[in-house]
Amino acid sequence: MVNLIEYEAATAEVKAVYDDIRATRQSDFINNFWKALASHPPTLARTWADVKQVMGPGAIDPLTKELIYIAVSVTNNCEYCIHSHTAGAVAKGMSREQFGELMAVVGVANQTNRLANGYRIPVDPRFADPLGAG
Amino acid sequence: MVNLIEYEAATAEVKAVYDDIRATRQSDFINNFWKALASHPPTLARTWADVKQVMGPGAIDPLTKELIYIAVSVTNNCEYCIHSHTAGAVAKGMSREQFGELMAVVGVANQTNRLANGYRIPVDPRFADPLGAG
Amino acid sequence: MVNLIEYEAATAEVKAVYDDIRATRQSDFINNFWKALASHPPTLARTWADVKQVMGPGAIDPLTKELIYIAVSVTNNCEYCIHSHTAGAVAKGMSREQFGELMAVVGVANQTNRLANGYRIPVDPRFADPLGAG
Amino acid sequence: MVNLIEYEAATAEVKAVYDDIRATRQSDFINNFWKALASHPPTLARTWADVKQVMGPGAIDPLTKELIYIAVSVTNNCEYCIHSHTAGAVAKGMSREQFGELMAVVGVANQTNRLANGYRIPVDPRFADPLGAG
Amino acid sequence: MVNLIEYEAATAEVKAVYDDIRATRQSDFINNFWKALASHPPTLARTWADVKQVMGPGAIDPLTKELIYIAVSVTNNCEYCIHSHTAGAVAKGMSREQFGELMAVVGVANQTNRLANGYRIPVDPRFADPLGAG
Amino acid sequence: MVNLIEYEAATAEVKAVYDDIRATRQSDFINNFWKALASHPPTLARTWADVKQVMGPGAIDPLTKELIYIAVSVTNNCEYCIHSHTAGAVAKGMSREQFGELMAVVGVANQTNRLANGYRIPVDPRFADPLGAG
Repeated sequence: MVNLIEYEAATAEVKAVYDDIRATRQSDFINNFWKALASHPPTLARTWADVKQVMGPGAIDPLTKELIYIAVSVTNNCEYCIHSHTAGAVAKGMSREQFGELMAVVGVANQTNRLANGYRIPVDPRFADPLGAG
Repeated sequence: MVNLIEYEAATAEVKAVYDDIRATRQSDFINNFWKALASHPPTLARTWADVKQVMGPGAIDPLTKELIYIAVSVTNNCEYCIHSHTAGAVAKGMSREQFGELMAVVGVANQTNRLANGYRIPVDPRFADPLGAG
Repeated sequence: MVNLIEYEAATAEVKAVYDDIRATRQSDFINNFWKALASHPPTLARTWADVKQVMGPGAIDPLTKELIYIAVSVTNNCEYCIHSHTAGAVAKGMSREQFGELMAVVGVANQTNRLANGYRIPVDPRFADPLGAG
Repeated sequence: MVNLIEYEAATAEVKAVYDDIRATRQSDFINNFWKALASHPPTLARTWADVKQVMGPGAIDPLTKELIYIAVSVTNNCEYCIHSHTAGAVAKGMSREQFGELMAVVGVANQTNRLANGYRIPVDPRFADPLGAG
Repeated sequence: MVNLIEYEAATAEVKAVYDDIRATRQSDFINNFWKALASHPPTLARTWADVKQVMGPGAIDPLTKELIYIAVSVTNNCEYCIHSHTAGAVAKGMSREQFGELMAVVGVANQTNRLANGYRIPVDPRFADPLGAG
Repeated sequence: MVNLIEYEAATAEVKAVYDDIRATRQSDFINNFWKALASHPPTLARTWADVKQVMGPGAIDPLTKELIYIAVSVTNNCEYCIHSHTAGAVAKGMSREQFGELMAVVGVANQTNRLANGYRIPVDPRFADPLGAG
């Protein structure tokens, strides 16, 4: 349903994003996600800026960020994202045992989310302000 | 909408689960989630067994499991679970900076999930079997 | 955020729907859902026609239909619908034990949905055409 | 993306679960869901224990439980689960007419869930405590 | 998994709906959605009445309604509906640039929905009653 | 659960974003969404850049973009976003009649999404490539 725009066929605007993806990832490979977004250059540039910022080094390590990304993608059933971020997690060192535990946590969280919502369970006062917002 | 069953009012079957929660967590506190599930003892016992198994020590560390749990709960908008697992993550050492990065990853993942689904992007061949299932 | 339109303040078009709700349910009570939809009369009339058709007598008994409705509402986290259809199910005879089992099935289904999607499990050939569509 | 582990290739731990599935269902057939979960034995054992408990005999009859399971799976769009539980429902006696009514209720519930959430409709006082929790 | 019922094989009840679809759309083409629903005639008739009413001329123009439909279908990941309503939008004049902007808005809305829910942000008093319900 | 950071208490980094929000919207009002995100300045700056880009002038008019935003927010049940974007749509001229039609389309789309997914309806060949990607 969507054109996948290869580097050679791309405009200068798109090529600039592709170049930054390649430089950031230290790899020539551009995956289909970006080739598809290239059909709308402002979305390509903006989404890459988003992903580059949030998945980069920070207070949470890169492998953990991939696990979080997979958890969201499985909950939403995004086939593409499950595949691409599982590949990303494996590249960052995820073991099969870790993938198994990840699926287990995601499954149980989806279960308890519905139990909490179905029973309309009130938040415990001591959980009201866990971040100490005051 | 649901009775919250206190320890003193619980049957022996429910008390046994409460006792295991207390022993496992090394705390007398029983949060509302379990007090609500106690209205259906088989669900209480089974759900506690699920949570105890998947959130315990393993190949993924306990704080990371809490982050994954929050990611799912935010995606599903479970108010109770967001509060209780944010409290759990804070108790395991999550900083405010980590919470900020977690929300950022969850937000971006929810965005790119829809871009991938909306554009019907085909999975790249190299992402087809990331776990090496063969 | 929405006006609740009472019978006395309603137009003839809205009153006609309210009258049919009352006659169908053999009760004078009009719940807030309909009073809110009355702010857009075509939606009120159409939605009532939908609900009247699908929740009426048929191949599935009325209590089972309420259980199905609750299952969907809990999965989507619709507070209003969880309350109103739990009330409807109780009025049709649902026991507390049945509610407990319903929540248990809904919880486990939400869990296994994610396991199936996360592991990208292929449909067994014998499940391909369960209704015998040919 | 996932290995499907056949009985003959399974460890004793996995075989024990497969044996219980076969005994419980009085059939030698093991469907792909379990063969996939077998890649993480604790998840296999736990999930089977969950499903065995909640889908077994109780206050809600087995066919109704399958209808509820399908309702959740359709709402979440789990292709595997829709197929496997529709097959399960047919095996328990679901007619095509019942499947048609099930889809109708699921569709309308998904519609009214959004109307209730979009209009932010307040819960009627008489629906506040439908289970008489007090 | 579902029979697609062609016009020639349809009952008079189904043919009447097909005839109205053809007359309304001024085209002989009946798409698979309706051929599938024809397996349960009351759902076919009711769903067509729903779609005919809400997608017809009104206070929102037909192309905008298609954009809204796509936005919901992408958020829910309904492959069939994304394809059919994108085709519908193109037929009503949607440009590729508009499709690109639509995906961008849907992506960002899904992101900010989770940020608002994850941070549990309170509604500003001035947003409490935007429609002036009083 | 979250601190709302007022302009006066903000760092220079946060103030710069607030200033741009004010200039772009030609209003001194900063709504709670931004005050909450200010607890994680990179998310504040990035999310504002996202929203500013996608909601600005383009091939889709600003009011239509608000309708799309509301459609997503209702589907996901984001209370905050439903309120804030309904207010935004009203400010851009949305009538009550348009809001009623919007809710109607969102409701029906959520219904037909599940019918299409539940019946596993195959995409019509003529809908395979609606954007002419080739």
